[in-house]
Amino acid sequence: MQIDGTPFRTIWVGSDGHTVEIIDQTRLPHEFTIVELKSLDDAARAIADMQVRGAPLIGATAAYGMALGVRGDGTDAGLENAYDVLYATRPTAVNLRWALDHLRALLEPLPEGERQAAAYARAGEIADQDVEICSSLGEHGKEIIERMWIEKGRPERLNVLTHCNAGWLATVDWGTALAPVYKAHNAGIPVHVWVDETRPRNQGASLTAWELGRHGVPHTLIVDNVGGHLMQHGLVDLCITGTDRTTAAGDVCNKIGTYLKALAAHDNGVPFYVALPGPTIDWTISDGIADVPIEQRDPSEVTHLTGRTPDGRLETIVICPDNSAVANYAFDVTPARLVTGLITERGVAEASEAGLAGLYPERAG
Amino acid sequence: MQIDGTPFRTIWVGSDGHTVEIIDQTRLPHEFTIVELKSLDDAARAIADMQVRGAPLIGATAAYGMALGVRGDGTDAGLENAYDVLYATRPTAVNLRWALDHLRALLEPLPEGERQAAAYARAGEIADQDVEICSSLGEHGKEIIERMWIEKGRPERLNVLTHCNAGWLATVDWGTALAPVYKAHNAGIPVHVWVDETRPRNQGASLTAWELGRHGVPHTLIVDNVGGHLMQHGLVDLCITGTDRTTAAGDVCNKIGTYLKALAAHDNGVPFYVALPGPTIDWTISDGIADVPIEQRDPSEVTHLTGRTPDGRLETIVICPDNSAVANYAFDVTPARLVTGLITERGVAEASEAGLAGLYPERAG
Repeated sequence: MQIDGTPFRTIWVGSDGHTVEIIDQTRLPHEFTIVELKSLDDAARAIADMQVRGAPLIGATAAYGMALGVRGDGTDAGLENAYDVLYATRPTAVNLRWALDHLRALLEPLPEGERQAAAYARAGEIADQDVEICSSLGEHGKEIIERMWIEKGRPERLNVLTHCNAGWLATVDWGTALAPVYKAHNAGIPVHVWVDETRPRNQGASLTAWELGRHGVPHTLIVDNVGGHLMQHGLVDLCITGTDRTTAAGDVCNKIGTYLKALAAHDNGVPFYVALPGPTIDWTISDGIADVPIEQRDPSEVTHLTGRTPDGRLETIVICPDNSAVANYAFDVTPARLVTGLITERGVAEASEAGLAGLYPERAG
Repeated sequence: MQIDGTPFRTIWVGSDGHTVEIIDQTRLPHEFTIVELKSLDDAARAIADMQVRGAPLIGATAAYGMALGVRGDGTDAGLENAYDVLYATRPTAVNLRWALDHLRALLEPLPEGERQAAAYARAGEIADQDVEICSSLGEHGKEIIERMWIEKGRPERLNVLTHCNAGWLATVDWGTALAPVYKAHNAGIPVHVWVDETRPRNQGASLTAWELGRHGVPHTLIVDNVGGHLMQHGLVDLCITGTDRTTAAGDVCNKIGTYLKALAAHDNGVPFYVALPGPTIDWTISDGIADVPIEQRDPSEVTHLTGRTPDGRLETIVICPDNSAVANYAFDVTPARLVTGLITERGVAEASEAGLAGLYPERAG
């Protein structure tokens, strides 16, 4: 996507052919900073400190981290060390594990002298594949938006509501939930996005609002409490969110609060779509509410907020009494019955076992 | 209610017999400050700057403001001026208008020399009446909590979820939504409150958490996105919120986001109660979604947050990009079909025209 007219990805190899460059997402939306990763430790720190986040981008960064690792030490011990150091950064991230396993399996049989080139090449392919998947699901999602826009008589503004950040900043390019939005916008469809701020970490206010704005997509920031009211008054034409985990039955585990928006969409007859790369479906579980353990995160994400002061400093403040207990649940599960459709790189499926099995016959059952 | 063991109201007359004292709610939860109102202008500023907020407390403060006004100038001109100055502070506040009209009607016929004493006496009665109404609806609400606790086999913890602040800080004492909680807690029922932080103004994080904590009621602060997840997992036994405006048909206009919690309660079979003083029912309208205009407030409430820095200063920060549009809807409407019951000072009514007419036969129809 573009930042003020310049095309960008979230991760790329610099002109020297080996330095990996990323956008420091912890500084957004207040500062746009490109960080150079020159070593394994740089890559590990970028993942651990969440300078990169979003499952696909974490996977791509881990792959490039392996490349940086074997560039520094191409021995078997160096390869193992790179795996261990990167794995320890976010051990629960599925894409991280997948990318590391994939790179290790590729590199282990190779002579030391060939490992660096092979690793960079494979990391590049992983990044390109992610772009291709997101672009493809974006096309399918764009068709939904376009059809709806035409059916509604080509209104001056078609309103999409999204929650959290499943934009290009969470992937290598395009994003998942926002890929259809970018495709529609680029095709001249007048799409406007309601952006939930997405407490507690405010990925909507800090990342989604920023990336839409930089690409030039009209959008309006709202607090998470507002979506239901907008839907009651006909101000939302469809919802699109991403998902961290999707069950074989189409239940969707996504950022906390997604379920509330799905309920409001259902109550007001607003279509609620979820966009996901097919490879992220967890075929081993069906009942999302019973089977998906919900991570609790540090209470400080609720009690503390960081932002920019009027004179331009970044400052962290506390917003509640010191002695109150705090619970910080990270995700919730939206049952398939509330999901209108799952937008994947292969097309749009009904959120059901049959729907998903139809698109992924090789995986289902 | 109590602040660390000491009984307090939100407004009272000091020991000199005429200075009115309030808690500065704009400094909570970070600083507990009592402010002395010695003049009409002091009272007007307290309302305009939201040092006092909540419809009942605004009404009581306006009444005391009239008393301070005629104490300063007991002439007809002084009385008119006090009315005008106070009315201009928050012209859309129904209780403000009611209290001012009431005091003016009382004072106008009186000789100048009697106005001050009459005004203080009547302001005191208005405050006492509010305490009585809240205490009474608290008793009715407490019966619901107690019955539920007994029916569930007296669990170690009965979980109530609330949104925004409808506690004693919004009234003179007891509160509306929280009156049943305080009554239950005081009676030894082990009630625990999930406190929605309530973006954008965070009245839950700053006021509800503070007042529950100071009175000693167990509670846990959560972001507004969490309630649905808690209900899916059986962690909420009932919801109680307040309401800014209730239609004759039982639709409830309350702080933005209330509707989303009511949807989640309905989806999970969790009772959803709304507590209100009967006098706040608007008998002239029925369809809340169609008939209640929803105030949009300043975008800065969304974009800016004030809190305490680690070294103890109060600081304001911006949390989003500078160029994003922002919409700030203040209230939403929860349709009566999602409301289990309306808790009033006369008892608990079904949220319907028949239910309310049964409790208030003199007003209905």
